[in-house]
Parts: sequence; structure tokens; C-alpha cells
Amino acid sequence: MSPAKVHPDKKRGYIVPIGGAEDKEGDSNILRRFLEVSGGKRARVVIIPTASSLDDTGRRYEKIFKKLGAQEARALPITNRTEAAKEEWIAYVDEADAIFITGGNQLRLSTILGGTIMAKAIRRANARGATVGGTSAGAAILSEHMIAHGAEGTTPKAGMVTLSPGFGLTNRVIIDQHFRQRDRLGRLLTALAYNPFALGLGLDEDTAAFIDGDSQVTVVGKGGITLVDVAELEHSSLAETQEGKPVSLTNIRLHVLIEGGRYSLETRKANA
Amino acid sequence: MSPAKVHPDKKRGYIVPIGGAEDKEGDSNILRRFLEVSGGKRARVVIIPTASSLDDTGRRYEKIFKKLGAQEARALPITNRTEAAKEEWIAYVDEADAIFITGGNQLRLSTILGGTIMAKAIRRANARGATVGGTSAGAAILSEHMIAHGAEGTTPKAGMVTLSPGFGLTNRVIIDQHFRQRDRLGRLLTALAYNPFALGLGLDEDTAAFIDGDSQVTVVGKGGITLVDVAELEHSSLAETQEGKPVSLTNIRLHVLIEGGRYSLETRKANA
Repeated sequence: MSPAKVHPDKKRGYIVPIGGAEDKEGDSNILRRFLEVSGGKRARVVIIPTASSLDDTGRRYEKIFKKLGAQEARALPITNRTEAAKEEWIAYVDEADAIFITGGNQLRLSTILGGTIMAKAIRRANARGATVGGTSAGAAILSEHMIAHGAEGTTPKAGMVTLSPGFGLTNRVIIDQHFRQRDRLGRLLTALAYNPFALGLGLDEDTAAFIDGDSQVTVVGKGGITLVDVAELEHSSLAETQEGKPVSLTNIRLHVLIEGGRYSLETRKANA
Repeated sequence: MSPAKVHPDKKRGYIVPIGGAEDKEGDSNILRRFLEVSGGKRARVVIIPTASSLDDTGRRYEKIFKKLGAQEARALPITNRTEAAKEEWIAYVDEADAIFITGGNQLRLSTILGGTIMAKAIRRANARGATVGGTSAGAAILSEHMIAHGAEGTTPKAGMVTLSPGFGLTNRVIIDQHFRQRDRLGRLLTALAYNPFALGLGLDEDTAAFIDGDSQVTVVGKGGITLVDVAELEHSSLAETQEGKPVSLTNIRLHVLIEGGRYSLETRKANA
């Protein structure tokens, strides 16, 4: 599920993972900014509520985005793989300026949408310039390698995290959410330890990474983003570590950025 | 770790996953064919023995490939991440006609080589036309999503398989090896159930899939290859299934191919 090809005369749209529990009733800074980078008042937003098992999640976001001034906001209530192939709904995605994926269980997203023409349409939309973002489970699913679930704690331990293929909009990062609130550094480090090629992106609640078409990250929200860079990792003991035992990892580089902080996924340099 | 870009005037080289325990003393049909598609007598073969914890694995394959007529066969004894950046060894890979990755533990390959310039050099070699193949652990590592380990049995069960990012030479398949010998249908089905976008490639021992630059698979060897196509999967219960419990999956398409059998990863059609 690699990223769809970007046309030479087009720029990939924003990718916007949000750490969950984003403000919806107050200033709604993250959702407001999400609309702004998607064309503002002209924006047509499609909402994918598939991760959620609640009936009104889609309608709730329709109301929020309309209140914030979106021209259109429409939830596609996809609950199974047959619905994920519905031509009428694919057409909505093909014409959307922004696609928003709600929270819930990321394995519902991957099992119901994975390998369908809807998943392809979402990648295609991002490649032609549409924003694709999501909160919590909707954030996790955005990357090629997704954390499906895992255990809490700061120390990485063999077997504490389960990876699954995500939607593959980017392969530069592995995303984790509710990061500080649920003490997830250990599971993100473990995910990176398997194959230290990606960058770890740990998102606190009510905090988002706005990743533009040049792979520049800008932080929006009330918490922090923890960036874990393992490009210079010297040693990972994971291959020899027994399930449940702590893993040794040396020479990790860490950044914590807050509102307004910037980071280039291309050069791997922070600009706080 | 997406596949490196293929130049418009070049064709991607063969990708050759082997199910383990390939014949080395007798006809050596698989290794012989591996050499043939890599230039035959002119072929310079680089061997990556990093998965193995035995000291003589690399030398053993040097002897085998020389005996089969390779012009050059040279093992790079990479045992840590610093060695994976050795310029002299990168140069060997840059000039190789074929790269062969031995068996052992695939997590040694991903933890030691993942994210290094050696892993990039291997992808680059395949993109310019060099063959990249491997046996057992060396087969598992070839794809973007790799089975790191898992449990035996025919029935898929939640949590029975651990995925990790591999070398990413292809994102069309998820590979499993020692397939019939170790009763691995269940773990391959579980791996596919997370996100039903990839094709499952279950390789018996002494059996290989020769995947050419047009994504056409040809089977070589004494056993079978089990192809698991979940493109038309109707239902996966994985998101709701408790750890250790069986998973419901409906409408899977299965093919078993033997020596000479062909399959297109592009059209997903068999031609036995």
C-alpha cells in the first residue's frame, strides 16, 4: 500500500495525524487549521467513521466541520468491505478537498478498508493534493506500518507491540497517539526497533502534526509531539530478546516539539 | 522502505524468495536457476549471511555459487550496524549481478540492516536489474511487511503472528517459508487478515518463486507454492477477535502451484 504516485505538476496534500481527544467545542484549533489547509470555506470534507462502533460519530463530525465553515461535510458510514466498494462514495472521495478519519479501533479501518478501492481512492486523493487526516485510530492508520495495539510503559520490551499494514500514505513515520496520556514511549521504541528505518511520531492528545507536501511537520495543539529518530541507532538487541523482556537500544535521537515547532522528515532536523 | 525507483530505461531485477532447505549438494536447481537469471557464468554474486549466527554460512554459499560457475561469489560478514555502513562492502553490492541473503533469524536482518545504507544499496541494486533472493529468513525479509515470527497451525488466530517492516523490495506479497513443513497457513492468513491488500506467498522447502520485472511468478523446486489472494475477502473478524481466538475470514481465493507453474501478481491470475 505504498503512496500513490504524485503527478509532476501536482503536490501531495497535507497528511494530518492527531493524537486523539482534539478540542471540538471550544476554539477547535486543530480542526480549524485542518479546514484552512484544505481550502477553507470552499472545502468539501469527507468523513470516514469506520473505526468507531458508535452510530453518531460521523454525524458529529459533519456538524463540527459545518460549524467551522466547511462548504460540505459528509460522513460515509462504511461498516463492511462491500460498502467500501460503493461507487457513489468513491466519487465523493475523488472530489473531496479533505478526508477526515475518526477515532475508534484502527484494526476496523485496516480490516474493512484495507485492499479496497476506497483505500486506493484515499491515497489517490492525497496524491492530487487533498488533505488526509485523522484522530487517534484515524492517525495510526495513515502510515505504511501501523501500531495495531500494544502495552503501556516507557521501557521497550520484545513483543509489547503489534504492527499491521496501514493505509500507506507515508512510509517515513510510525505514528502513536494518546502518547503522554497512555505512556507509550516503550511501544513506539519497540515498533522502531524491529527495523530502524522509520521515524517515530508520538502525538499527545489534542495535538496534531501537519505534514505538508515537502515533508515538513508543523505542530498544532495543546500538547507535545515526541519525535524518535533511530537513523544513527548503533545497537538493537530485539532479535535476541525473549518475549516480555526489555530491549537494549543505543544512540537514539529524541525531540519534543510544541505548538509552532517544525521538523523536516527529509533532513530529520528540528526547528523549534 | 518502499521499492527504489526503477529508471525508465531499466527493468527491475528478479526477486527470488526460497522456502528454505534448498538443495545445495545435488542438482541445486534453484541456486542454478538463480545464477542463470543473473547473467550465468558472468555473474558476480554477493552473499549476505547476517541472519545466520553460524560463522561459516557465508563461506559455504561462496563455495556453492563458485561450484555452480559464478564468476565471483563473495560473502559480506556484516554482524552489526556499523559494518552495514562499510563503503567497501556497499561498492560490492553496487556492482553485483545478484545478492543472496541466507537463512537464520529475519529479525537479525531487519535490526542490523534496517535503515542502513546497505539496505538502500540492496534496493537500488534490484531497481537497476540485479537479482535479489534469499532463503528462509532471507526470503521473509524481501517484502515491505515481513512475518517476524508466529505460531503453527492451519486456523488463523488473533495475535498468532508478529509483523515487522522488511527490506521493502516489493509490497505486493507477504512471504512465508517452510510452509507445508511447519504448518503455517494459519499465521499467513492472520498476517493477511490485518489488512487484506497483499497477496500471501507460502513457500515449501526447496521451492522458490522467481518473480520477474513484470511481476510474473514462476515456480522452481520440489515442493509447492501456496498463493493466498484476499482481494475479494468479504469479512474479517480480526478487529473484534480476542487474542488467541480463531478469526473468521470469508471468500479467500487459493492456488497451489508446482514446478513450472506461473502466476501474475499484476492480474492475480494463475497459469499452471
